[in-house]
Amino acid sequence: MPTLDYQLTANFIGNEATTGEGDFFRAFAPASHEQLIDEFANVSSEQANRAVEKAATAFATYTRLHPNQRADFLDAIASEIESLGNLLIERAVLESGLPEGRLTGERGRTAGQLRMFASLLREGSWVDARINPALPNRQPLPRPDLRRMLIPLGPVVVFGASNFPLAFSVAGGDTASALAAGCPVVFKAHPSHPGTSSLVGQAITTAAQKTGMPDGVFSLVHADNSVAQELVAHPSIKAVGFTGSRAGGLAIQRIAQERPEPIPVYAEMSAVNPLVVLPGAIQENAVKVAEGLAASITLGVGQFCTNPGLVFLLDSPQTELFLETVAEKIRASSPATMLNAGICHNYQKGVQQNRVVPGVHVLAESDIDAESIRTEGRPTVLTTTAPQFLSTPTLSDEIFGPTSLITVCATEAELADCLNTLEGQLTATLYATPAELTESAVDWVSLLQSKAGRVLFGGYPTGVEVCEAMTHGGPYPATTDGGRSTSVGTGAILRFVRPFTYQSFPDQLLPLALQNDNPLGIWRNVDGKLTK
Amino acid sequence: MPTLDYQLTANFIGNEATTGEGDFFRAFAPASHEQLIDEFANVSSEQANRAVEKAATAFATYTRLHPNQRADFLDAIASEIESLGNLLIERAVLESGLPEGRLTGERGRTAGQLRMFASLLREGSWVDARINPALPNRQPLPRPDLRRMLIPLGPVVVFGASNFPLAFSVAGGDTASALAAGCPVVFKAHPSHPGTSSLVGQAITTAAQKTGMPDGVFSLVHADNSVAQELVAHPSIKAVGFTGSRAGGLAIQRIAQERPEPIPVYAEMSAVNPLVVLPGAIQENAVKVAEGLAASITLGVGQFCTNPGLVFLLDSPQTELFLETVAEKIRASSPATMLNAGICHNYQKGVQQNRVVPGVHVLAESDIDAESIRTEGRPTVLTTTAPQFLSTPTLSDEIFGPTSLITVCATEAELADCLNTLEGQLTATLYATPAELTESAVDWVSLLQSKAGRVLFGGYPTGVEVCEAMTHGGPYPATTDGGRSTSVGTGAILRFVRPFTYQSFPDQLLPLALQNDNPLGIWRNVDGKLTK
Repeated sequence: MPTLDYQLTANFIGNEATTGEGDFFRAFAPASHEQLIDEFANVSSEQANRAVEKAATAFATYTRLHPNQRADFLDAIASEIESLGNLLIERAVLESGLPEGRLTGERGRTAGQLRMFASLLREGSWVDARINPALPNRQPLPRPDLRRMLIPLGPVVVFGASNFPLAFSVAGGDTASALAAGCPVVFKAHPSHPGTSSLVGQAITTAAQKTGMPDGVFSLVHADNSVAQELVAHPSIKAVGFTGSRAGGLAIQRIAQERPEPIPVYAEMSAVNPLVVLPGAIQENAVKVAEGLAASITLGVGQFCTNPGLVFLLDSPQTELFLETVAEKIRASSPATMLNAGICHNYQKGVQQNRVVPGVHVLAESDIDAESIRTEGRPTVLTTTAPQFLSTPTLSDEIFGPTSLITVCATEAELADCLNTLEGQLTATLYATPAELTESAVDWVSLLQSKAGRVLFGGYPTGVEVCEAMTHGGPYPATTDGGRSTSVGTGAILRFVRPFTYQSFPDQLLPLALQNDNPLGIWRNVDGKLTK
Repeated sequence: MPTLDYQLTANFIGNEATTGEGDFFRAFAPASHEQLIDEFANVSSEQANRAVEKAATAFATYTRLHPNQRADFLDAIASEIESLGNLLIERAVLESGLPEGRLTGERGRTAGQLRMFASLLREGSWVDARINPALPNRQPLPRPDLRRMLIPLGPVVVFGASNFPLAFSVAGGDTASALAAGCPVVFKAHPSHPGTSSLVGQAITTAAQKTGMPDGVFSLVHADNSVAQELVAHPSIKAVGFTGSRAGGLAIQRIAQERPEPIPVYAEMSAVNPLVVLPGAIQENAVKVAEGLAASITLGVGQFCTNPGLVFLLDSPQTELFLETVAEKIRASSPATMLNAGICHNYQKGVQQNRVVPGVHVLAESDIDAESIRTEGRPTVLTTTAPQFLSTPTLSDEIFGPTSLITVCATEAELADCLNTLEGQLTATLYATPAELTESAVDWVSLLQSKAGRVLFGGYPTGVEVCEAMTHGGPYPATTDGGRSTSVGTGAILRFVRPFTYQSFPDQLLPLALQNDNPLGIWRNVDGKLTK
């Protein structure tokens, strides 16, 4: 086994732990605002290429494994990650500036996701098997035997996100769902948490070896932009998963579309997650809703894709109380360390740009100044009016961090105008009473539905449940694929498959899911009827 | 009601039958190679725009109808088409040159498809409803109530195909599946069969009115390229369906990607549908397989997306018998009228280009010359060797019509090389014995699976069954979306929907599919278990 230091900075080209042949770099510790000592090295083009070639070779074997073997692999990854113990948590704290409690929770979520996909595979019905048996005597023409199921696309490149160093990173939702689908993964680590990435990469390759997976089913590479682009352009790569900025997602999408064979990119990019408050909903609990909002804005230093960046308040007698409560909570909140210097800088720049827009006012900011020596972001909430919001399109741009803009609308028409200008979102939240919805001339639920992948009736959008019914995706530009997929929950597996039909195959040449005696015992659609 | 002539040449902007304000054109009768007398007029930009605006307005109502109401609409379309009787068949014969029997069969298929989607809607489980009820006491955090289902994307533009004037045209699979999904359709008629299109357009608008659908749920327009492009670019359009040439499909795809909000294009473009013959499979029935192949090549004058344009024969003692049988059948076949002058011209050009390639030989052509006065295509089969095929990439381009290129491969390695160079296909057909598959060093099934959406074990790819288990789509460039969808069968509905999650909604505000007492009686996934 390699030494501990070696694991911390390794690239994994399949099972081979190796030093990159590209440029060196070091990780940044945001809480102390300093470079860490360990040196990482990016892979060369040739090394990246080898990872893809190994993935392509592994695909032929991996796609044919019994689903339970893939499930065992996913379970083993979860265990190996847990076995890393405090080593992993400490490194993640160092590299992300996130508190230990949050990262312990995130590790639980990461392991839970892997095990969720393992049990989805063991249950097996997700392949949507459909069988139309032959009708040799049908008139005027016989029907051949037709059997269809979902099959994996092929090797996939996944890009790690900065804001979830575990759950949306090396062994996060994209990796787990692609591996579950039967697709080998070449993972491009996020430079914000390279040590955390290598440790988890080591856990995955260990799990792959322990469960007898083909070499190349998983690779972890540190890579510069140019090599990352080569990964996306490689002809053996059949899909891409990405969570990050809009600029990053669109750049990858462009490369993927310009290939001789274009491939799907599932990029979850940006969202401002509007929260809409109608008067009836806060008539009696304005303080409670406002307190919850302030907590949601500042949760995790606002570094969530589902952070409520825009609030629209229909003016009512409660407006003042609502705003004052938010203001109090924000003033009492503390600045906190952000994920890295770039995010912190962009946050400050974004807030500064908005606060100088005429007609935009600072409702409140934290009473404590942010310490740049700790890479801190200072919670800040701004307010404006609907006419001002409508005349300044940049006010609806995402600012990643603990800030929100509250637009007070004088009329329902103003509110509807504001919402209609919004781009596609991951979420939208509606505070209303059922009576208000019936009485309004505007169909608020349909309006928000047209803009988002998930609409909440009350509550706050932060906190994305990992389950069957989750949709974490939304109309463009929330995601590149127009919201036709989710990157969280069991549905995420559907991104990495395509339907495929076997016509007139002998039973023994069919995959288990489609054989006559249903050896997997899964739900199948036979001539339109679901049956086991 | 408008007069009969008026219906034949009308555009339908929702329920409004109207003359286009753009250029006039007349239909072409390929069998007599002459212009027909009736004058059609393309819509203006303004008229096309109005069709989209009506569709956007209709969407709000249409998406909220009980699924059975949408089913009634689809059933009514089928009946109205049947009510057109011989008027429709005669016009389609005139405009397409296809024989009456074929068009009567195609009408049956068209009506059958509409009724298939109607019963899919009545059964209702296709929406993939998933429910994770609230867990208010869960530790460390409660779980909110989450409910997810597939919802329609919005108004859709569909382009008619030339080669199926009924089943892939105005009321064809794209229209039927989009309307079933809950998406209003603006249909752009194919100029090869404008009268057929207007008649079916009238049938759909009549059905819409009889079943109380919102005005604008369907429009039929004759349009030039520039107006057609405006339709694709209109911000209210959320997806496009297309069947036709690769150039056409890619042009639409480009417009759709360059919109401020890119939208999905489901273009089914080109395929050469390789048919691979290993020696064992024809050891005893070379004549039968060869006869069937000749019939499949010439069926419908070769004008099917699934026409077997490339055949790969692994050399064996049966090669000569196989080739001679194909040759005999082709010589005895007759030239026949093609769909239009452009297709006929391209067919002749394509065959001519290939037959002059050094190393390519004419195995056989029909003994009868094609009559250009009847817009005829002459069946022609070419042969070549693997080295020649590998050195001439254009030999694998689609030639739409009754032709095929048979490549005789000396070794398995040559055969594998040829297949590996192929682009994505709708289908691939494998003639082999199970023993041959076991013994070969090449995994032929996996190789063909990586190239196609449907693989046949024996048989011929022409004849696409409309059923649950069909996949009519394949890796790029067979379809623009990399084979992640089918345009035939019940699965086609999945192209026009996206997953959507309702969080913490009061029961009465949820759609019927997600309400607690399951009023639709559909299969739903509740905490991972399928239940009614």
